[in-house]
Formats: sequence, structure tokens, C-alpha cells
Amino acid sequence: MSLDAGLSAGADVALGVDIGGTKVLGIALGTSDRILAEARVPTPGDRRGKEDAGSRGADAVADAVADVVAQLDAALSPVVASPRSASPIGVGAPGMVDHQGRLRFAPNLPQGQGLDWRRLMGDRLGARPVLIENDANFAVLAEHRLGVAQGYRHVMMVTLGTGIGGGLIVDGRVQVGGHGFAGEVGHMVVDPSGPPCPCGRRGCWERYASGGGLGMLTRQAALAGRLPQLVKAAGGDPESVRGEEVSAAAQDGDPGARRVVEEVGWWVGFGLANLACVFDPECFVLGGGLMSAGDLLLASARAAFAELVEGGDRRPEVAVVAASFGARAGAVGAALAARQGGLR
Amino acid sequence: MSLDAGLSAGADVALGVDIGGTKVLGIALGTSDRILAEARVPTPGDRRGKEDAGSRGADAVADAVADVVAQLDAALSPVVASPRSASPIGVGAPGMVDHQGRLRFAPNLPQGQGLDWRRLMGDRLGARPVLIENDANFAVLAEHRLGVAQGYRHVMMVTLGTGIGGGLIVDGRVQVGGHGFAGEVGHMVVDPSGPPCPCGRRGCWERYASGGGLGMLTRQAALAGRLPQLVKAAGGDPESVRGEEVSAAAQDGDPGARRVVEEVGWWVGFGLANLACVFDPECFVLGGGLMSAGDLLLASARAAFAELVEGGDRRPEVAVVAASFGARAGAVGAALAARQGGLR
Repeated sequence: MSLDAGLSAGADVALGVDIGGTKVLGIALGTSDRILAEARVPTPGDRRGKEDAGSRGADAVADAVADVVAQLDAALSPVVASPRSASPIGVGAPGMVDHQGRLRFAPNLPQGQGLDWRRLMGDRLGARPVLIENDANFAVLAEHRLGVAQGYRHVMMVTLGTGIGGGLIVDGRVQVGGHGFAGEVGHMVVDPSGPPCPCGRRGCWERYASGGGLGMLTRQAALAGRLPQLVKAAGGDPESVRGEEVSAAAQDGDPGARRVVEEVGWWVGFGLANLACVFDPECFVLGGGLMSAGDLLLASARAAFAELVEGGDRRPEVAVVAASFGARAGAVGAALAARQGGLR
Repeated sequence: MSLDAGLSAGADVALGVDIGGTKVLGIALGTSDRILAEARVPTPGDRRGKEDAGSRGADAVADAVADVVAQLDAALSPVVASPRSASPIGVGAPGMVDHQGRLRFAPNLPQGQGLDWRRLMGDRLGARPVLIENDANFAVLAEHRLGVAQGYRHVMMVTLGTGIGGGLIVDGRVQVGGHGFAGEVGHMVVDPSGPPCPCGRRGCWERYASGGGLGMLTRQAALAGRLPQLVKAAGGDPESVRGEEVSAAAQDGDPGARRVVEEVGWWVGFGLANLACVFDPECFVLGGGLMSAGDLLLASARAAFAELVEGGDRRPEVAVVAASFGARAGAVGAALAARQGGLR
């Protein structure tokens, strides 16, 4: 590959990094929208009880992002000349990212909140173009441009991970609201007397319909004696059964585990019904790590949505589908947006 | 006025009619956006328990709309030549109006639901152009174009009437969603164990934060002995104290009545906080008949919103303001949209 050809290819490669509550995931997107490389590291810092850990906690997370970028650069170096100088980078963060790239509020990444992520990343990545946005805004771009939501003009992406994120396509375009914060749907309160949320309120949707919600409902089921085999496998301690184990046991047919997954699915569908009232999308796309709970979760969510949506028997059907890119949607969208210089 | 000048003026006059749960309100909008005339009649038909009363109940409502139009035409005839043939008409209905002008679902106007309102009105108004849309979509257009929301690019209008309606400005344009149903915010469920709603679910926002919600909270307060003077004035029967009386008594300083209005205001702010998570508007505009409860309601809603919105101390302030056009916003927007041939 000649230098010129390499530079040209480099300009068409973009990197996308998604900072999640548990892992930092990066991909390199090549021409023809192929995923050329992937890298991941655990998200540093115990996120619990560390409100505003400040620059030290955030520095560790920013270092992890830079580490992922370095891994991607290394993976690309045999095929792309000078990736370090050529390929733009999109970085998605969970929470309220403003138009200046500052993470204003992030209940699921408190060690990174209040800080200027454009500067944090600029310090590490030099002069490379870096775009910072909410993770789910990137995810909906990926699914609308390349994935399961192609062709729809009104789409709501809901990422079910540690918490819940949301991204919107309105009339064919990504919309982020007046300050960049649209789609923070996990913090709709669905039960004012529900359990406390790290955001400071009670009964937020993400207390029920996320990975965290699966954990809570797992614990309740284990303590109520509805997961006897999993409790036994966990050494007899109901408190140590994990959501991932319930997810796997449900796929193996454990009745108690299936009931827990159905319950989480009901809460997913319940929230989608609320969002359909507000937005009237043609299509909901569900992504995030919780979707690894499989078909039962999706089927339960669809059933609850159909039962609960306003005027359900009098309205056109709304598609409720799994993300094409699964848990990679945020990273793919980040790369797409970086390549085009913004969400649009 | 010459015939030609009259026709020209006629083309610039548009009529807007808002079908509410209790009244049908119409206005004539002239050049320079002046309100030239106004008319109103009670909404025919007992709306309770009459799901799909069908064409008979709907005919009565459509006749009432035609009656309002005739009154406006009569009021205009001294100033506008041939208003009957010249001025287009917008008609707003509460509920889910699809792109074909069919009212798919309308918990607060069941006698009109399931029917083709474009045809119903065409039968009565002949060849005059008639535009049918959700009432709150018209209301947000009025406030954005001519009222308190001018200059904002992201606005959410919430009409607090018999129920709750909603209209959206996203990136400077009215948005109605994939099927025309966006903004049905009254049917977000805010408490799954709450009171039953005519929509078929439980704990919808409009059970608490509308005229109906004021009625419910009034009844609870009267039965709990918190409205002794109003109960006495109502002949000693707690069940017969009405929301409007509480509203008036609160403005006169009755402590129990003030507490009821504050409670309704809290629920208003609670719902706005949820909607801010989803949409991130720069401005909420509150309209509808409940706003006649006055400054205390608005102040309580603002206080609850500020307390409850996600990341409240970390985000730019969101304006929460009363509609410029009060309960007329829907009718004014209907006329504006009729004049320009659509919501945009």
C-alpha cells in the first residue's frame, strides 16, 4: 500500500468507543462500514458511592478509552497507514452529555461526571478529531443507518445495560433535545414509591428494566424461594445468585428463572408503552447487554407492550426488535458519527 | 369593501375549532393574526361510559362544531365577504388522530372515537378545506408561532384540561410521530397501582394532573375533612365539592384548598420531570382549563419540577410557563394550521 493510498484509507477509517458501566468497548469501522477491529477493557473504578470522584476516577476511565484506541490503532497498523493521525474518534458516555462535550450527570458513571470529556480525551489523543456524545444517541444512529431500523422515520432506541439509555430518530434525523440530554428514558419515574435510584429519585424505569433491575428481581426471587437450584449452586446463599446466572438458567428452562426474565420483560414493555404515548415511534430497537437474556425477554416485552400501549387495538402495530449490532451499537454509531463529523 | 377585496380578506381569515371534553371553542383568526371572533357551545353527549356511542353521539359533536363555525361565519359577515366559501377550518380533537383524520382512540371523547372526522366535517361544511389534528398539536403551533414559546427550538406544550394533551416542537418544527399520535402524554403511567383510567389502564398521569385529577384530589381532601368550609357551603356533603370551587377557594387563601392545588401542581411537575428526561425541551408551556387555578398551581409545578428533574442542579434551567393563549391555544393553532394548509 502506497503512502497516499494509506492516507486515503486512513481517512475512511473511524474509531468508536462506548464507555459502559462495566466495560469500555471500541471498534474500528472501515470503508463499506466493515468492522475491522475490536477492543475492550473493564471500566475502571468502583462506580458505587463515588459521586464526583473527580479527575482521578475520570482520568482512569479516560486512560482506559485511550488504551482501547491504542489497541485499535495497533490492530489497524498492518492495513492502514498512519491511523494515529488520520482516523477520527467518537466516544459515547452514559448520561447527560451537553453540546460542549461535558458529562453533566451520570448516575451510572459518577466517577466521570461534571467533567469536560472533550478536554480529557484531547489530552490523551492529541490533535485527532474527537466527538463526545451520549452513548445511546450513537447507538440509534448505527441502527438507523446500518441496522434493523433502516427505512423508518421515527425510531426509539433503548439500550438495556447497567442502566437504560435512549436515542431518538424523529422524522429521519437523530434528535438530542435542547441541551443534548434527550433520551434519558431510564429516569422516567414509573413508581414514585419504588426503590431508590443512584440518580437521587425513587422508582426510575431503570430500577426494573435494566441489568440492575434483573439483579434486583433476581434477589427478590431468590429470597422468596423461587430459584432453589440457583441458590443451591451458589452455595445456599440467596444473596449471591447473579442476574447473568438467572439469564442463562432461563434459557435452559428453569421455571423460576424464566419467571424472573418474564418479569423484567414486562417492565421493559411497560416503559415502551409509556414512550409510545409520548413519541409514537414506528419502531423500538432494544440493545444493550441485557438483550443477551434472549428471546424470552424480547417476547415478554412485546407481549406487555401490546397489552399496555394506549389504544392498543386501535393503532398500527409498532415494531419492537432487537438491535442488529447488539451491545456494539453504541461503538459502531460513535465511529459513524466521527466519520461524518457529527450525529447528522 | 369591494367584492375582490372581500375575497382577498376572506382568504386570509381562517377558523379554528377545538373540541374539548366539556366545550367546543372556535375562533376566527384574521390577517395580522388578530382574533376577529369567538364562539363556544357545550360538548354534546355524556362522555362517561359511552365508549363508541358511534355515529349518533359523534353526529351531535360534529353538529356542534358546525354550529360554532356558523356562529363565526355570522360574526365575520359584516367584515369579510363570503366567509363560507373562503376561509379554511382547522378542527382539533382530543386523542389519537391519524394522518387520515380518523380519531382512533379518545378516552375523553368516546362518542367521537373510531370515526372519520374528515368525512363527518366534510358532510357539514361542504367543500371548505378542513384540517383535522390532535388539539394539543395545534396548541403548540400557536404558542411557538405567536405565543410564549417563540424563539425556542425544543418545546413541549402540555394542555391540562379534562384530560392531558401534549404537543411537540422538535428542532423548530411540530412533530406528530410515526402515525400522528405523539404527545399523548396524559397516558404515561406514573403509578401502576393508581386509580383506573378511562383509557383502560391504571395510574395514568392525567388521573392526577388534570381537571379530572383536581376533582379526585378534591374529593379525597373533602372526605378527609381538609375542606371544612367548602363542605359546609356544599350543604355538608363532601362528595359534592367541585374542583372549580377548590380552585377559587385556594385563590381566596383557604388553607385546605391551597393544599389540594399544591398537590395537583406537584403531580404536574412530576410528569414534566419525566418528560424532560425523554425530550429535553428548552421550554414547557402549560395550557388548558386547569391553568385557571392560577399562580399557585404554576408555582407548585415549577417547584416540583426543579426538585424532581434528573440532574436538576447540573443542567441549564428549563422554562415552565403559562400559555399565552390560555384555553384558546388549541383553537388559535387550528386556525393557523388551516391557513397554511397543515401543521408545518
